Amino acid sequence: MKVAIAQLNYLIGDFDGNVSKITEYINKAKEAKADIVVFGELAICGYPPRDFLEFSDFIAQSDQALSKITEASQGIAVVLGAPTVNPVVEGKDLYNSVYFISDGEVKHVQHKALLPTYDVFDENRYFEPATEFSTLEYKGYKIALTVCEDIWNIGNENPLYVTCPLDILIEEKPDFVINVSASPFSYNHAEERLEVLKANVDRYKVPFFYSNNVGAQTELIFDGGSVVMSANGAIHREMPYFTECMEVFDLDEVIRGDTHQEQPKDDIAEIHDAIICGIKDYFGKLGFKKAILGLSGGIDSAVTAVMAQRALGSDNVRVLLMPSQFSSDHSVNDAEALAINLNIQYDIIKIKDVFDAFMDKLGGHFEGLDFNVTEENIQARVRGTLLMAFSNKFGNILLNTSNKSEMAVGYGTLYGDLAGGLSVLGDVYKTQVYALANYINKDSEVIPKNSITKPPSAELRPNQKDSDSLPDYDILDEILFEYIENRKGPQEIIDMGHDPALVKRILRLVNINEFKRYQTAPVLRVSSKAFGMGRRMPIVGKYLS
Amino acid sequence: MKVAIAQLNYLIGDFDGNVSKITEYINKAKEAKADIVVFGELAICGYPPRDFLEFSDFIAQSDQALSKITEASQGIAVVLGAPTVNPVVEGKDLYNSVYFISDGEVKHVQHKALLPTYDVFDENRYFEPATEFSTLEYKGYKIALTVCEDIWNIGNENPLYVTCPLDILIEEKPDFVINVSASPFSYNHAEERLEVLKANVDRYKVPFFYSNNVGAQTELIFDGGSVVMSANGAIHREMPYFTECMEVFDLDEVIRGDTHQEQPKDDIAEIHDAIICGIKDYFGKLGFKKAILGLSGGIDSAVTAVMAQRALGSDNVRVLLMPSQFSSDHSVNDAEALAINLNIQYDIIKIKDVFDAFMDKLGGHFEGLDFNVTEENIQARVRGTLLMAFSNKFGNILLNTSNKSEMAVGYGTLYGDLAGGLSVLGDVYKTQVYALANYINKDSEVIPKNSITKPPSAELRPNQKDSDSLPDYDILDEILFEYIENRKGPQEIIDMGHDPALVKRILRLVNINEFKRYQTAPVLRVSSKAFGMGRRMPIVGKYLS
Repeated sequence: MKVAIAQLNYLIGDFDGNVSKITEYINKAKEAKADIVVFGELAICGYPPRDFLEFSDFIAQSDQALSKITEASQGIAVVLGAPTVNPVVEGKDLYNSVYFISDGEVKHVQHKALLPTYDVFDENRYFEPATEFSTLEYKGYKIALTVCEDIWNIGNENPLYVTCPLDILIEEKPDFVINVSASPFSYNHAEERLEVLKANVDRYKVPFFYSNNVGAQTELIFDGGSVVMSANGAIHREMPYFTECMEVFDLDEVIRGDTHQEQPKDDIAEIHDAIICGIKDYFGKLGFKKAILGLSGGIDSAVTAVMAQRALGSDNVRVLLMPSQFSSDHSVNDAEALAINLNIQYDIIKIKDVFDAFMDKLGGHFEGLDFNVTEENIQARVRGTLLMAFSNKFGNILLNTSNKSEMAVGYGTLYGDLAGGLSVLGDVYKTQVYALANYINKDSEVIPKNSITKPPSAELRPNQKDSDSLPDYDILDEILFEYIENRKGPQEIIDMGHDPALVKRILRLVNINEFKRYQTAPVLRVSSKAFGMGRRMPIVGKYLS
Repeated sequence: MKVAIAQLNYLIGDFDGNVSKITEYINKAKEAKADIVVFGELAICGYPPRDFLEFSDFIAQSDQALSKITEASQGIAVVLGAPTVNPVVEGKDLYNSVYFISDGEVKHVQHKALLPTYDVFDENRYFEPATEFSTLEYKGYKIALTVCEDIWNIGNENPLYVTCPLDILIEEKPDFVINVSASPFSYNHAEERLEVLKANVDRYKVPFFYSNNVGAQTELIFDGGSVVMSANGAIHREMPYFTECMEVFDLDEVIRGDTHQEQPKDDIAEIHDAIICGIKDYFGKLGFKKAILGLSGGIDSAVTAVMAQRALGSDNVRVLLMPSQFSSDHSVNDAEALAINLNIQYDIIKIKDVFDAFMDKLGGHFEGLDFNVTEENIQARVRGTLLMAFSNKFGNILLNTSNKSEMAVGYGTLYGDLAGGLSVLGDVYKTQVYALANYINKDSEVIPKNSITKPPSAELRPNQKDSDSLPDYDILDEILFEYIENRKGPQEIIDMGHDPALVKRILRLVNINEFKRYQTAPVLRVSSKAFGMGRRMPIVGKYLS
């Protein structure tokens, strides 16, 4: 018995494209003499389809696409995820299902029972949970089918669910388990995935074939890394990250359990690759090729530019250097040096004249009032407007360069440096941006050393430094991490040894700046808690604010 | 037996403020000799607290607040909603509960079973559903407690749930049912609420005391309209909309069922009042007083200005008139006339010089390329930057003036006219904006007639009209309504008699402009399907696009 896993990059709602890709891999699997080929969760329509699922037209198209896959299943078994209409009037209208199809027929359907409804997941919004579970037989083997979260209720200290599908399925004594997943990347997710699979084989003592989607869907990045695990807990195979591919496994070899292979795991290297995947798919799937961004000479825009150039190529990245009267010479020099290193088109546009034109109009209204954040923001918005003008004229998507630390505390200008179609570093803390920069420079100096070593500054007023208004980033990031990722309250963070006044000030800044994050671009998610769909906070409220 | 309903306006996370308000009304209810006083769903912490619920610090503060209410319950019974920690490790960490407290003790807790997880609701994200149901006895009466959605599974053609709490509770033969709700406004919601209550009393033959929260929480507007319904279906009392108040009811009178009173219902009048409530609370709860907006002479900004002035007062609304070289004289005149009618501060700032300063910088880069949407957007962004400068300098929140029709098809400039902290008309179709304008003018001409009757135009290029790029708004709005509110697919809309090419073009525009809506301000929700949290669409996808 040979089982193929095809970890593919689907496009949400592109039924023709998804069917044609799935069919192509069905044929490849047949050529490789596979008995079964396993695709991913909701492979037919892409994951997450969100509220498209509420359109009966969308579901009808999905059903038609599934019929085409069924026709293509002659001589092989195809396992893939698709939505199923709930035939009962009570409850949600759909199930999230895995289909077992062979020889032109749907042989078995198993619905998903554990519907993730936390962080970025909304599955209870659309799906009714399964209440019935059964295995199927194929070529003399008994197989248990599961969908993603259905195997994640084992090995957690605080299980989110009160039921456990495999506890029921295992009573039918399956020979192995297949899982189709759409499990998004975060920098600690690959380890977790292996731990959960290990906890499952420890409990159920059968091999697992775990197939995960790959590729980015707006902010969510699916890393692939599909796993075949033997019943003894050996990792028979961990497939590549961020790569669309298919591999074929011999069940007898998996059962022997004498192969153990695991990919090296490094947070920063994974974040680097994930972001490149995220940019590439955001552009590619929208049908765009070219990016633009502002290069300040600072580390955030430098790292963003490198990520963009590595994702899209030098020909497709353009940068503007837009010094103000407060910009230092070395900022422009550092930015220019980076553009030359990356071999990307750059232009220098000084913003003072446009800033002055604004102040001519505003001066009378602002008479007697000091230069303050208003004038700082005007500079940032002049830059945003210039970048958007290039974006509109030449079709380059503007990349937002803000990091997670500054987005957290609201250190950025709405419609200014917070503008852009995609936030590249919005889930990367400043301290991690430094690590990324050093990782980028590991073989040669791509980012000018000065951009990394100089004190961070927005350069929006004379001699401004980030440290004028913010604590050191290593302290700031620690506090933010405890609040955002770990959801600790002020007292818990203070008890870790942080200054009480500082903790309260930082948490307040995070909460009162929710209105800015509400209006910023989707953030490529690389952590377990990114800003955006996965973190839903009131704008109007009075908690820690 | 006297039952008081207090429909109050809570502030999310403001435990001190909420406790003090609830205590004040407990005392008022005691003075009025009420035996029971009923507050709303999650009254203790405000609804919806969203991911604040994931902070154990937040829950600890909520528990402390509940203790204070418990202390205040001497001599009266208090019914109110609060989160409860789930004592079992499996499942979600919380319940959404209604508490029955009297004489310093929690006498009964009933958890919510039906957890809305659709549109703007995310309750499965936080709460475990109740599986146990029981009534309580108080002063010789048997009472069934329910939370909001728990009574909404009756009278629907397509029930979302497979269980029905009152089917179980009714077996204990309660004398009446209390429901604590946080049920947000939409212009058809008050009718639906009465229908659902009617369906409940028809089925269970007992009186209902239904208490709804009031006031806006960012985009969600709670309209109050609490209801006492007799067992015979008579509406004993429908309390006022959008008003914080308490009323006391005599149970014997309710049981008699000889009073029937219902408020008049008019969609446009309700939308008008809801928007005023939304603006007032957005500002008041954030601690801001003053608004600013751009007045173009067109109908959208005119209606927005009136709403702002009615919510905040003439002294607190300031407008900028920012004509470009393409603005007609009458635009400025109409805007000026409105500002004078509303007695609000206005300034005229011509944008041509700033626009020219941008073009000086960009001209070389754009050589040989025609004037197009790029230059139109620059004008809109100059206006956005000027408005934000006033916002930053003087602390006025910028109001967004875009209507639902143009937000739907992407007819607006990101960081330009799509800027602002709150979208006032983003859930009001253009045809409804006309109706609102006429409603505003019903007694006297507040909005200059010319702003209503002239053909809509963005005035960003010579002789531009909305009708150059969009169909007539009555046709556009019909198609949008079928797609957005009714979630019809293209063929279904075409089958209603619309032009196939036009339908496909419109639906495509809606879908490809998701990226713009992702970055616009929270939209005051007045319909059953508003842009924002209640409509979650992929940005990257290929469905109808």
